[in-house]
Amino acid sequence: MTQSLSQLPQSAAVDPRDRPLRVGVLGFGGLGQAAARVLAPKREMRLVVAADHLGFAYDGAGLDPDRCIEVYGAAGTLGALPEIGERCDRSIEAAIAAAQDVDGYFLALPNLPNTFMASVVDQFIASGWRGVLVDALKRTSAMEQIIERRDRLAAAGITYLTGCGATPGLLTAAAAIAAQSYAEIHQVKITFGVGIANWEAYRATIREDIAHMPGHSVESARAMTDEEVAALLDRTNGILALENMEHADDLMLELAGICDRDRVTVGGVVDTRNAKKPLSTNVQVTGRTFEGKISTHTFTLGDETSMAANVCGPAFGYLKAGTALHRRGIYGLFTAAEVMPQFVR
Amino acid sequence: MTQSLSQLPQSAAVDPRDRPLRVGVLGFGGLGQAAARVLAPKREMRLVVAADHLGFAYDGAGLDPDRCIEVYGAAGTLGALPEIGERCDRSIEAAIAAAQDVDGYFLALPNLPNTFMASVVDQFIASGWRGVLVDALKRTSAMEQIIERRDRLAAAGITYLTGCGATPGLLTAAAAIAAQSYAEIHQVKITFGVGIANWEAYRATIREDIAHMPGHSVESARAMTDEEVAALLDRTNGILALENMEHADDLMLELAGICDRDRVTVGGVVDTRNAKKPLSTNVQVTGRTFEGKISTHTFTLGDETSMAANVCGPAFGYLKAGTALHRRGIYGLFTAAEVMPQFVR
Repeated sequence: MTQSLSQLPQSAAVDPRDRPLRVGVLGFGGLGQAAARVLAPKREMRLVVAADHLGFAYDGAGLDPDRCIEVYGAAGTLGALPEIGERCDRSIEAAIAAAQDVDGYFLALPNLPNTFMASVVDQFIASGWRGVLVDALKRTSAMEQIIERRDRLAAAGITYLTGCGATPGLLTAAAAIAAQSYAEIHQVKITFGVGIANWEAYRATIREDIAHMPGHSVESARAMTDEEVAALLDRTNGILALENMEHADDLMLELAGICDRDRVTVGGVVDTRNAKKPLSTNVQVTGRTFEGKISTHTFTLGDETSMAANVCGPAFGYLKAGTALHRRGIYGLFTAAEVMPQFVR
Repeated sequence: MTQSLSQLPQSAAVDPRDRPLRVGVLGFGGLGQAAARVLAPKREMRLVVAADHLGFAYDGAGLDPDRCIEVYGAAGTLGALPEIGERCDRSIEAAIAAAQDVDGYFLALPNLPNTFMASVVDQFIASGWRGVLVDALKRTSAMEQIIERRDRLAAAGITYLTGCGATPGLLTAAAAIAAQSYAEIHQVKITFGVGIANWEAYRATIREDIAHMPGHSVESARAMTDEEVAALLDRTNGILALENMEHADDLMLELAGICDRDRVTVGGVVDTRNAKKPLSTNVQVTGRTFEGKISTHTFTLGDETSMAANVCGPAFGYLKAGTALHRRGIYGLFTAAEVMPQFVR
């Protein structure tokens, strides 16, 4: 008799009588470190391996996030952790090989260059490892590269969930739910608000935002001096208004059959002179009901929730859901708009 | 090679090159009639059978909703439809037997008495029919009866999705998504707003609402005369404020492992003297992030969306998702908080 998925939280997927899921995190910058902290109190998941570009650390008994963050901060790599760390080239490949018993990985890697995540996926496919992979990719063009690998992922016995952060991710999934009220979707509009008191603490992020502005590119923004950035911000009173950003929410909602991708827009307002957000991050789904009424559902994130909370929480929620699929032999590629994330305790 | 679920909208689940899903609707009151209208323009689903308590109509080529509503209004039963209608006792049993090729049913039946839906489920289990069933049940105690039938549904080859309307349903699923940002959920608060210009057009609904008020019951509310209802509404300026209603959102979020059911509340405000809603229907999810911040995500429905749109749209979205599960041999019981609904084109 087939067991219902709804029984999985109590049984196959993550049985408290069983062992917690063994989880890996690739990338140990801000996002990877937050992921380690998110996992620390969980009973259903245990962080056993984490890698950066200079090395990795593996401990089947579980990694201590404070210790990892301390050593990474001091030595620049988790490879410097005594006994459990290993400095190496090709650290991702080495980590996968060392930690064969890992159930799933959160790929918390910066996708630089834009083909990097796809190359990591190829390493997983080549390694023979089977399990669940979750990414929090942003750009549509990067996700298209992952989608090209759909059949190879399925053949390798990997269940891959893409776009599982905040946007794409949390907000895309909320849009997929909201769409259900409508016969036709006219627009999905994602708007994020970011407030930072002092832009100089976020030089890389601000340049990444500037790269999205008209007349700028990743290269031109990176080449700007601090004085040039400050001068630009003076002209805008510290506000960066971003429109029509390349975000894979559009591709995901199109793949889910909800609307054509050109009806999905992502933009935001970054205030570089106030810690308070200039607006609350939200997604608005506008459509026509079967009676012919035009209306808009809105999903709004609480201002006190950080980017780290809104990315890492969903990422592990999708990793848990992906594990339930994997244990049923369901492999291949899914997006965050197609699978309901499961709450991780 | 296992096919990925993300390919299902284009292939196994509902392939436009293939045939549309054959759908049935049980119950032909306001909700069943709206369901027929929702389905009319869909390419991926076709309404082929509908039943009321006095008869049913079945046409493999598809039922015309206008014609069905007209005949039902005039004759009181779909059984009066020439050629395709049949008046009968035990009309649900007869409809199931007559329409063996139906892929899935939306159970748009009023659950009166509180054990009625469970008895319908028993009829499906006994019939030998295999497919997808979707309900829009409200009360926790009614859903508990369905959940008791989990193993029998799985053994019968039925994929049953419960609580797939607006609340429970759309709002519960949105709450399950919103919960992902938090390490712990403190409260899920669902509040609905209803505005009606003239309560006398909704005598039964108003009495149902009064039954939820302190000091009232289903029996006492039903026994009230129109003068007594009018007097009550005069005392409240036409406002019915409902708190701590018995809604299965609590059970569904508990089963999904999101929070204990006592942290979930459902209430609403009904203005019986204004068509404008006194407030927008919404769900607020309050929790603590991994950094210790307390915050609230909010999902708000557009005021122009009707109850019918917010119930029937999700119901068929879950029926489509349920079909993908059924075609993979995944049977048993699921709630709307565990499965991502699929948009029906």
